[in-house]
Amino acid sequence: MIYLDNSATTRAHDGVIDVVQDVMRNVIGNPSSLHGLGGQAERLVTQAREVIARFVGCDTQEVLFTSGGTEANNLAIKGIAKAYQNRGNHIITSSIEHPSVFEVCKQLENEGWKVSYLPVDQTGRVRAQDVEKEITKDTVLVSIMHVNNEVGSIQPIHEIGQLLKRYHKIFFHVDAVQSFSKIPLSVTECGVDLMSVSGHKFHGPNGIGFLYKRRGVMLDPLLTGGGQEFGFRSGTHDVASIAGLARAIVQAEKERKAFLMRSRTWKEMLIDRFRQDLSHFTLNGSLSACSAPYILSISFPGLKAEVLVHALAKRDCYVSSKSACSSKLEMPSRILKAMKKTDQEALGSIRISMGFDTTEQDISMFAETLIDVVPQLQHVMKVYTK
Amino acid sequence: MIYLDNSATTRAHDGVIDVVQDVMRNVIGNPSSLHGLGGQAERLVTQAREVIARFVGCDTQEVLFTSGGTEANNLAIKGIAKAYQNRGNHIITSSIEHPSVFEVCKQLENEGWKVSYLPVDQTGRVRAQDVEKEITKDTVLVSIMHVNNEVGSIQPIHEIGQLLKRYHKIFFHVDAVQSFSKIPLSVTECGVDLMSVSGHKFHGPNGIGFLYKRRGVMLDPLLTGGGQEFGFRSGTHDVASIAGLARAIVQAEKERKAFLMRSRTWKEMLIDRFRQDLSHFTLNGSLSACSAPYILSISFPGLKAEVLVHALAKRDCYVSSKSACSSKLEMPSRILKAMKKTDQEALGSIRISMGFDTTEQDISMFAETLIDVVPQLQHVMKVYTK
Repeated sequence: MIYLDNSATTRAHDGVIDVVQDVMRNVIGNPSSLHGLGGQAERLVTQAREVIARFVGCDTQEVLFTSGGTEANNLAIKGIAKAYQNRGNHIITSSIEHPSVFEVCKQLENEGWKVSYLPVDQTGRVRAQDVEKEITKDTVLVSIMHVNNEVGSIQPIHEIGQLLKRYHKIFFHVDAVQSFSKIPLSVTECGVDLMSVSGHKFHGPNGIGFLYKRRGVMLDPLLTGGGQEFGFRSGTHDVASIAGLARAIVQAEKERKAFLMRSRTWKEMLIDRFRQDLSHFTLNGSLSACSAPYILSISFPGLKAEVLVHALAKRDCYVSSKSACSSKLEMPSRILKAMKKTDQEALGSIRISMGFDTTEQDISMFAETLIDVVPQLQHVMKVYTK
Repeated sequence: MIYLDNSATTRAHDGVIDVVQDVMRNVIGNPSSLHGLGGQAERLVTQAREVIARFVGCDTQEVLFTSGGTEANNLAIKGIAKAYQNRGNHIITSSIEHPSVFEVCKQLENEGWKVSYLPVDQTGRVRAQDVEKEITKDTVLVSIMHVNNEVGSIQPIHEIGQLLKRYHKIFFHVDAVQSFSKIPLSVTECGVDLMSVSGHKFHGPNGIGFLYKRRGVMLDPLLTGGGQEFGFRSGTHDVASIAGLARAIVQAEKERKAFLMRSRTWKEMLIDRFRQDLSHFTLNGSLSACSAPYILSISFPGLKAEVLVHALAKRDCYVSSKSACSSKLEMPSRILKAMKKTDQEALGSIRISMGFDTTEQDISMFAETLIDVVPQLQHVMKVYTK
């Protein structure tokens, strides 16, 4: 099997599975319990929080565990909107955010908020000056993702963060779900107030993630109850998944640099092979340093991405059309449309995304398979559309 | 180790751990992905949904997976409040709900909602006629738990459900976190519109639960994004935990009846032993059929529950003072105060809660230990308070 859909979800690392299993089997307490078993569970949560805080470069109290990236994004945006509604009613975001940011903004618009959706250039990048242009006295929050999930474009977080430092009343949220553990981001240097992370995107468990929340930033909680996570997110801790998440981060720390280097080589290799042997394809995004090396989006105008995805799956190669979260809607990708791609390009685009466990053999076999499959489908399409 | 704190959290069943591990290792897809791997993951989610729907006696589309009981309670109450705010602004609940209901109601009060907190009798039960007395033309929701988490009292859900059938515009939410899989509740017969369930309370995985939502009931989602769970709860499915949750339900189906019978015997046995050999203790709740047999709350007025919990923990016996979610607050339990217990009784009460894996030996050894420990502590207290 050649699995190149790691931006949808990754295979959990063996060490992570072992940790989850071990905690499930041997740690029985509820961290909120008074007795020693509860204490043991609580220590595991604390240790995980320390691992994450060290990696992020923040205090342990700035890490809030959530059920994943979607909850982290919802908590950040809705939490700020409600806690600071007296300060203003304007949010700046981009037109290429993940649905868990984009749809939250749409929901807030229904409640009277004003939202500016920034355009992107042809490589799928927001311009920092566009952020500044949209700032009004009512702006409460800027929410921009780090790495786009469909095309891999890296947003100018540092630049935006620098300019926002001049606006003390505007919070800066970064959806780092597709970059965390891979592409470094210093929340301090970039002036990030909130950052969302999801475990299953870097070989951690599913159903767990966290929100980095800078000390002093208030949030109206989404989940109220027992007061866990410093009152910002109630609910019994999922100790096994939390420990597994920390284990995945430890692993990522070791593998990160080599992964980035080899995936950059492979991305270039793939494009070179495709340029040699495939006709009528376009690259969505770029090969520059402004693009995550582990995500590659290409279009075959005239082909239907779904057909190509299924044809590849028959050969045991797994990639995706659009993002998993919107792959079942038969609409051209909102992200590719924002990048001014034609409908034909958008409907014919696939995403190839690598994980820490992707091998060179995966890449070369995938290239062969694609080069074999695409011309056949292009031929069929020609016959049918004659 | 004698673990009698199963109302806080349970040990995951071995079969559940195996399922979680197996899915983590072998199922890589995101259920929202188009390709075959996504399909495989989706089928597991569908199968789990079928198992749950069969057990609940509902349609598969009426099961919404959440990150646990707290999220299910928040989604139910906040979701109804927001979706039906034009219908009225009044909620009826009890004074003995779990924090994830109680604190949600407090939060809604801050937003202008009116909430009636029903009193309970000395056994910790709401009276159905009290529900009816509180109904106004603005009442949108009644939220009453099935089994109380601190004293085990079973609320008259059937009776309340029957009377609410005359009020078509009022929704009925039941927090069944402490009863689900143990004490049957027919959502159809009881006219329940929403029911919250948490996996880790019956030997399932942590971080997973569900909300039963009757077809046609609207909810404003808490988590917006990819539109999973029929649009009511976005976020990538935690397939391993969902499969583990279904596995726990299958197990519970087999063990339920025998568990109820033996725990009733044991509860009576414990009380008999304590009556014989301990002085100055009171039972919180009752031994009647209106009390869950697997939860036993007793008070030792004059003793501090924390001290007793720690003394028992030293003997490797684990019980709790109050509920886990509020055990770290040094306040007399809100539930016991609602039952008109004195501060002394409330501060000196412990909860003994059994799980499917509790054995007769656990119970008899626990009785011996408690009978040994309590008089020693009572003696110490006498010396110190002389």
